[in-house]
Amino acid sequence: MSNNTKKAVVYVRLKDGVLDPQGVTIHKALTQMGYNDFLSVRSGRFFELGIAADAGDIDRQIDEVCSKLLTNPVIETFTVEKD
Amino acid sequence: MSNNTKKAVVYVRLKDGVLDPQGVTIHKALTQMGYNDFLSVRSGRFFELGIAADAGDIDRQIDEVCSKLLTNPVIETFTVEKD
Repeated sequence: MSNNTKKAVVYVRLKDGVLDPQGVTIHKALTQMGYNDFLSVRSGRFFELGIAADAGDIDRQIDEVCSKLLTNPVIETFTVEKD
Repeated sequence: MSNNTKKAVVYVRLKDGVLDPQGVTIHKALTQMGYNDFLSVRSGRFFELGIAADAGDIDRQIDEVCSKLLTNPVIETFTVEKD
């Protein structure tokens, strides 16, 4: 990343109580493979965003794109980590 | 999480130089929506693992399941964060 770029990472998780078929499937596979110490698996996604260093009101912009594009607010939540 | 469970999170990223079609698509969409301050988007996945507190050699176990099941070692790398 150049000096003209800031970075933010958006972590997207399913809300508590929402079924996570991918996590369930992976957990089953682990158990079948003999890895019985893994008691649960929950999956999520993240997006690393390169942002112009002179961008204005970046917190608001990130919030907007999370709600509009990166997540499904009905079933997902997100957290943002900035450098 | 109960006291009998430890947590680890595995973050899976595409290796540098590997094309990320999802990230490219999201970046294009952001630009078309007028969000020109976002210069790049790179996508990844993560898995929250609940692990038995009395599990032995857990670092080795996590490494194994990452290589065998959670990632494609040819094009992806992973990092592990433990509580």
